[in-house]
Amino acid sequence: MRKSIITKNVINRTMSAVVVLSIGLVLNVQAADQSSDPLPSWNNGALKMKIVQFVSSVTTKGSSDFVPSEQRIATFDQDGTLWSEQPVVQGMFLMYKLELMAAEDPSIRAKQPFKAAFEHDKAYLKSEGMPAILELFSATHSGMSQEQFEAEVEAFFAKAKYHKLDIPIGQVVYQPMIELLDFLRANNFKTYICSGGGIDFMRVLSDRLYGIPPEQVIGSSMKKALQLVDGKWVLLRTGELDSFNDKEVKPVNIDIHIGKRPLLAMGNVRSSGDIGMLRYSQGRKGPSLQILVNHDDEKREFAYAEDDNASLSAAKENGWLVVSIKNDWKTVFK
Amino acid sequence: MRKSIITKNVINRTMSAVVVLSIGLVLNVQAADQSSDPLPSWNNGALKMKIVQFVSSVTTKGSSDFVPSEQRIATFDQDGTLWSEQPVVQGMFLMYKLELMAAEDPSIRAKQPFKAAFEHDKAYLKSEGMPAILELFSATHSGMSQEQFEAEVEAFFAKAKYHKLDIPIGQVVYQPMIELLDFLRANNFKTYICSGGGIDFMRVLSDRLYGIPPEQVIGSSMKKALQLVDGKWVLLRTGELDSFNDKEVKPVNIDIHIGKRPLLAMGNVRSSGDIGMLRYSQGRKGPSLQILVNHDDEKREFAYAEDDNASLSAAKENGWLVVSIKNDWKTVFK
Repeated sequence: MRKSIITKNVINRTMSAVVVLSIGLVLNVQAADQSSDPLPSWNNGALKMKIVQFVSSVTTKGSSDFVPSEQRIATFDQDGTLWSEQPVVQGMFLMYKLELMAAEDPSIRAKQPFKAAFEHDKAYLKSEGMPAILELFSATHSGMSQEQFEAEVEAFFAKAKYHKLDIPIGQVVYQPMIELLDFLRANNFKTYICSGGGIDFMRVLSDRLYGIPPEQVIGSSMKKALQLVDGKWVLLRTGELDSFNDKEVKPVNIDIHIGKRPLLAMGNVRSSGDIGMLRYSQGRKGPSLQILVNHDDEKREFAYAEDDNASLSAAKENGWLVVSIKNDWKTVFK
Repeated sequence: MRKSIITKNVINRTMSAVVVLSIGLVLNVQAADQSSDPLPSWNNGALKMKIVQFVSSVTTKGSSDFVPSEQRIATFDQDGTLWSEQPVVQGMFLMYKLELMAAEDPSIRAKQPFKAAFEHDKAYLKSEGMPAILELFSATHSGMSQEQFEAEVEAFFAKAKYHKLDIPIGQVVYQPMIELLDFLRANNFKTYICSGGGIDFMRVLSDRLYGIPPEQVIGSSMKKALQLVDGKWVLLRTGELDSFNDKEVKPVNIDIHIGKRPLLAMGNVRSSGDIGMLRYSQGRKGPSLQILVNHDDEKREFAYAEDDNASLSAAKENGWLVVSIKNDWKTVFK
């Protein structure tokens, strides 16, 4: 799944000639290095052309679509958009914590909702719904200081493997998305994660995985409280939900964190979780671009659809771009 | 209250020689221009020396206190720390909105809690407490889209005067603080506002007044909801309080927005609103600096104290720096 750096460089150089002919000379793209293709892991075609063309139009001075750099905000969902979500990595962390807890106190294996989690009893969790899910998160993600939680996530990441693909967690990110993030930043976009994942969970690795600093990560959160513990003021993680950053809540949290509508917003097809964010971006005064990743590549990644097809319907209705992993991504993983 | 730019430049040049002798040569300060005093509106003395020394020690490679630039977070209260708070500017906006409402519907002048606001009946507002205050804010700060609210704040700022000092609102910012913000940014600090003021109110002018972009403003907020209005998806401002960013809540919101403890935190003496933020900063692993502004200059600004003296007591107990406007600031306003 991984090409050596040398091989990649050779391919990049070979691709450069093709791209200069097909795209580079046509569009005035302000890439860091104009002689090379900024998106080598994306297949050439209409979709890639539209993305490159959009970035060119909003960054070319004098263009009617020019957008000043302080307005170049780009927001990305994480699970299924920046890395794989079969399973969701934070769910793996939750199980990792439950195993540690069971090693201390085996009786929790017999108690619900932990029993259902250990036995992958999806029917139970579905019937019990959000309260059961929240109890699992509360038990594994709270009761410690913010600093202690970060250390726990670090310890998990150091060892975790993404078994279905047989690679370490850090390599389950999508190479085409790393290139898109780099390309946007080279054009003075400020890149943010806006995901249903836990804000503190994501922040531990966001800089290392995506070059996105913690302060540019927006996610679900638990309530915290400033308390004096052993003579030190710490933020204690209470078990109570503060914000579930999904669907219509994403625009609300983008507004709280950034105070600007995204110029570019990108999510994926699975649970209609990104429709609200893309609508909010599209309501921006002036140009904007919305993109959805569609998981249709069972061979190289996974193939799955949405029960009610809401995301793809919204994409069709609103003219959002849809990435076919199968057709649009030359390489999938780092 | 304002010196001409020419006069200021002459003073700056004269001061440079003094500062080079007294501070500049002693400390290895990475100011944008090392030959000039980075804080010309601050009187030379122990306090200024400590601030400059701190910035030097955390930015000098090889120093045991060196802090990498991604950890150089500085948070500032606004009212009473970056600009005057007698009265608080957002209170002026609230009255401006109430007057516009009364022009449409004079009957509100006779209705509580509006009557108390129009008549400056502090006793009534104090006895009714937070519910009355929230009703005033809800009536003046909600019911419109986020974009409409921003336009209203712009209209207010365009005309507003700070009557007690007889200057436009934009000039009621403290010149020494502008210099401190510039000095910190020249040393790769990321500067944030963290204030009890409304996040959206402050964001309209934060870049123009302080060079702080909207995404680096943390404040009190109202709940918002994504809704379709006249075919467009907008964030509607509901009248419900989301977060009152004061006291122990400040660290919680700093964590949500930034995910790092501030290396430098600065507030002021009046209502003990900044003690929590300064404690949180001081709990950071490694060096940190906490500063409080004390308003003791009745002649050039205002003189006021805190009922229970909590802020100054905490400063003494924890070794925080205290700025005397009277003694430490050569110039107060821009």
